[in-house]
Amino acid sequence: MTSIGFIGLGNMGGHMARNLLAADAGYQMRVFDVVESLMESVTSASTSTTMVTATQSIADAVAGVDVVISMLPAGKHVKEVYLGAGGVLDNAGVDTLLIDCSTIDPTTAREVSAAAKDKGLDMLDAPVSGGTAGAESGTLTFIVGADPQGLERARPYLEVMGANVFHAGSSGAGQVAKICNNMLLAVHMAGTAEALGLGVENGLDPATLSEIMKQSSGGNWSLNVYNPYPGVMQGAPASRAYQGGFLVDLMTKDLDLAMATAEGSRSSVPLGALAKNLYRIHQQHNDAGRLDFSSIQWLYSPDLKER
Amino acid sequence: MTSIGFIGLGNMGGHMARNLLAADAGYQMRVFDVVESLMESVTSASTSTTMVTATQSIADAVAGVDVVISMLPAGKHVKEVYLGAGGVLDNAGVDTLLIDCSTIDPTTAREVSAAAKDKGLDMLDAPVSGGTAGAESGTLTFIVGADPQGLERARPYLEVMGANVFHAGSSGAGQVAKICNNMLLAVHMAGTAEALGLGVENGLDPATLSEIMKQSSGGNWSLNVYNPYPGVMQGAPASRAYQGGFLVDLMTKDLDLAMATAEGSRSSVPLGALAKNLYRIHQQHNDAGRLDFSSIQWLYSPDLKER
Amino acid sequence: MTSIGFIGLGNMGGHMARNLLAADAGYQMRVFDVVESLMESVTSASTSTTMVTATQSIADAVAGVDVVISMLPAGKHVKEVYLGAGGVLDNAGVDTLLIDCSTIDPTTAREVSAAAKDKGLDMLDAPVSGGTAGAESGTLTFIVGADPQGLERARPYLEVMGANVFHAGSSGAGQVAKICNNMLLAVHMAGTAEALGLGVENGLDPATLSEIMKQSSGGNWSLNVYNPYPGVMQGAPASRAYQGGFLVDLMTKDLDLAMATAEGSRSSVPLGALAKNLYRIHQQHNDAGRLDFSSIQWLYSPDLKER
Amino acid sequence: MTSIGFIGLGNMGGHMARNLLAADAGYQMRVFDVVESLMESVTSASTSTTMVTATQSIADAVAGVDVVISMLPAGKHVKEVYLGAGGVLDNAGVDTLLIDCSTIDPTTAREVSAAAKDKGLDMLDAPVSGGTAGAESGTLTFIVGADPQGLERARPYLEVMGANVFHAGSSGAGQVAKICNNMLLAVHMAGTAEALGLGVENGLDPATLSEIMKQSSGGNWSLNVYNPYPGVMQGAPASRAYQGGFLVDLMTKDLDLAMATAEGSRSSVPLGALAKNLYRIHQQHNDAGRLDFSSIQWLYSPDLKER
Repeated sequence: MTSIGFIGLGNMGGHMARNLLAADAGYQMRVFDVVESLMESVTSASTSTTMVTATQSIADAVAGVDVVISMLPAGKHVKEVYLGAGGVLDNAGVDTLLIDCSTIDPTTAREVSAAAKDKGLDMLDAPVSGGTAGAESGTLTFIVGADPQGLERARPYLEVMGANVFHAGSSGAGQVAKICNNMLLAVHMAGTAEALGLGVENGLDPATLSEIMKQSSGGNWSLNVYNPYPGVMQGAPASRAYQGGFLVDLMTKDLDLAMATAEGSRSSVPLGALAKNLYRIHQQHNDAGRLDFSSIQWLYSPDLKER
Repeated sequence: MTSIGFIGLGNMGGHMARNLLAADAGYQMRVFDVVESLMESVTSASTSTTMVTATQSIADAVAGVDVVISMLPAGKHVKEVYLGAGGVLDNAGVDTLLIDCSTIDPTTAREVSAAAKDKGLDMLDAPVSGGTAGAESGTLTFIVGADPQGLERARPYLEVMGANVFHAGSSGAGQVAKICNNMLLAVHMAGTAEALGLGVENGLDPATLSEIMKQSSGGNWSLNVYNPYPGVMQGAPASRAYQGGFLVDLMTKDLDLAMATAEGSRSSVPLGALAKNLYRIHQQHNDAGRLDFSSIQWLYSPDLKER
Repeated sequence: MTSIGFIGLGNMGGHMARNLLAADAGYQMRVFDVVESLMESVTSASTSTTMVTATQSIADAVAGVDVVISMLPAGKHVKEVYLGAGGVLDNAGVDTLLIDCSTIDPTTAREVSAAAKDKGLDMLDAPVSGGTAGAESGTLTFIVGADPQGLERARPYLEVMGANVFHAGSSGAGQVAKICNNMLLAVHMAGTAEALGLGVENGLDPATLSEIMKQSSGGNWSLNVYNPYPGVMQGAPASRAYQGGFLVDLMTKDLDLAMATAEGSRSSVPLGALAKNLYRIHQQHNDAGRLDFSSIQWLYSPDLKER
Repeated sequence: MTSIGFIGLGNMGGHMARNLLAADAGYQMRVFDVVESLMESVTSASTSTTMVTATQSIADAVAGVDVVISMLPAGKHVKEVYLGAGGVLDNAGVDTLLIDCSTIDPTTAREVSAAAKDKGLDMLDAPVSGGTAGAESGTLTFIVGADPQGLERARPYLEVMGANVFHAGSSGAGQVAKICNNMLLAVHMAGTAEALGLGVENGLDPATLSEIMKQSSGGNWSLNVYNPYPGVMQGAPASRAYQGGFLVDLMTKDLDLAMATAEGSRSSVPLGALAKNLYRIHQQHNDAGRLDFSSIQWLYSPDLKER
């Protein structure tokens, strides 16, 4: 019977832990979070073949388990949880597999992985996309930085929590790939909103223009499944006043990571940097932090705000 | 038997006219271009059932024909050809259908269409995408601004020259839609090159990163069929030193139109404006005007230039 | 006695014409504007030694005068007034000096000057800075494109209407220099507002930070005489709710000219293009077209709007 | 007799320490740098009334002195030197005055100052402008974050090393003010180069255009004392092939700090972000890291590179 230590049971981690339990694969799980009630929301999901225990410390959650999975807010937490005194590396067994699903800067990811490797441990950086909806439904995409053998060991657990697993490269590559993807997403979402705004202000119907661009060289994920213009795509956040979805506050956080990554490699990212600042202006002027990120349409079409 | 007057036989127009002849639909065609040799390249393509005649003036090309098709470099040419003394409107018959396939600013397109309407004539603005390759193979996409009945009258001819016909709206809407699409294309192409540059400079393989983003929320037309990074996609311009394809000089021309359109409607287009200026820097620094527009990768990955 | 034909008596031109009269230099003046009441506002300012007559056409205003001075809204008006049938060139005498003070694109300025030269006439493009306040007080700055002898002939009149005369170069150079200056002004004004916003959001006092930057390498005209942060500089538009001054609508018009000029020379102007689009966003989101252009501070410090 | 512990004797710190000695104010100085030879360059400058001693540790440099002055490359060094085991705070006496002249992020500056305050010590963040030339000639500008009494205690030393002292506010404010100033400097320097490039490409003489803008609303520090166009201003780096001065590598470092500061306060800094990325493109394409930052002119005027 495999034992799992799960650390970090917030919006994402809670769903992921419960999906592991629901798989009924006979996992034994020890969970830890600084917020007691979050642990209860998982322990109460225990099944006939699964045993889940709340713990009072990282040491307690990690001691003797086969696999450690973590889902934490930022690089500093990952560093503290893994490298701090009484942290994961201090307590993990010699064969423990370490899977960190947090989205953090690649430098920290590599630093922590290297420390794990020094102790002979396989560690993956496995940030996800798919949001809380994907976490709940078990359809997350994992973008993994790890050695191939580490990834193969982890695959069974990842496939319970998600629908897709990409291997981006060695340690840190998962973070880099996710950051690049999300920077590009910000650029084409804002670019799509900009093109739609320009078209509408010149007399076009947003649905007609969307359809033309979708089938032409302007085509992109935003137009396909996440149209930012209200009324064009049923079910998209734009058609429910931008409630829910992927929040502006989270997109700007990912863009912060992209900028930090570019700073590290002295790369030029002019479009990513501008997209980030347009999101900042949107955040401030339209009080948009808690809206879905496709609400950037408001920056281009301020009249939509008043409806 | 339908008679067609075709004006403008350059890189695009010549192929389009020859495709109309090759359709063997029994069209009678009168062609006009200021360059004599361009007319010969079409008249020599005459077939058993098709008669094609070179003419010495717009009046001569237009007099008595059922349909006028034009393909001209810029708005000022369209204005002169249609509205000038001795131009199309002075010579067209009462039922002549007018199809302008040039890519020009919407204001001029609307002005010319309105003048045609005043004379009781149907006129379409029908700019194309697909480039010279699409023109040659008859697989162009037409993006049409016109009244529905005008579009239906034109459809048989458009379908000989192209594979797709979109109806964007009334007069000028074809130009607006094409301009919006190409501005978005410039943004996501440059954004894709930027994301790939950032990934590679942080240790990722460009093909692996491309594959991940293509299947994720970063997905767009560039990643699908026109990857800008050399070696990732066989057959893409990036894999033949950016020769051929859609030239930087043409992309910047389309971005000029986008900026002029935004100026007319006082729209904000920050990403489009930045993309245009990045293309300008690329054009000047890398002598890139005659390279395919995906060569913007060089701006982000200057080392690639030396290979 | 010198006779002057003055065309265009709007916000700027009216003040300029009245200052010429007030100089009591014995000028005889014939004025023309399409708005009758604007002519009256000048004719009523006639003095003992000066005679001013309203006219009903350009021909009437220009016939027989020594000097023509014009102040018009845009390039198309200048073209029509000078080159149109019955326009200035059709009616000017063989030695008439032509001074156009409008701010327009350099291409049109050069085209009109060349036509004047073909008729043997000296013509200046002499756009101004200083706004309506400078026009009223006779302290405008003239930025002149002309041959040296043309400028010397014009100098006495310019010095009545203004305090500074710069010679930028030959025909069109006055327009280019003004456009470059105003693009740089937009960039450093928005840049100053951005730096002040960043400082204040990090706890600094805007007056203290302004003083430090003014005396350091951040120093610029905005900080010296036109501080955009409310309360820092008495008398600046920022301290009277951005009423009056140089309107956002006029700054975006000048930035449109800068972008068109850059398009003509295929120059890259990334900062100018971004500044223009930030002004557009400000215009739309803050209904700011009729506010002074230093109100761009609101884009960075939205809290200031509510005060 | 006042005793000073000086830590960090690089390009800047070495000159500053030697100026303190040269003041012949009878200072007793203990110096520390990890590079032995840098200490010798200072100890050899000892004068009749001044005693300077090289030390082997921070503890040794700091123990018993009245004033500690430090000049270090980055925030992490400041943190380590002041807060690390065996660092300044562990060894400073109860009345020691602490002056850190490094340019670092405000967050670290505030963290270190707060720790000093907890021990009852006055600490200043006192970043400088003026470069190595200013350091050598003793004409630096200090931008100080500190309580007023701390600043007054420090003033005599600052006035030996520099010509100007600004009080920006309490702890950290010195860093914020310097960062804001340098971001604005980057924007107006690049903006000036952009305006000059546009003017020259439209036929203007760069010196004439510079003079006009300097005296008009485009006026800024770059035009006054640091013109980026070669040949316009004798003595400016542009007129000596951009050798010496304030390096592109240092400007991008300061812009990194500005972006980090904006991230902390969630401020929008679109122009600063674009200027940073233009500097990055320039750095990569023109191998410009070791050139003066006014060499950004090359990005706009690539022909200048070949001369």
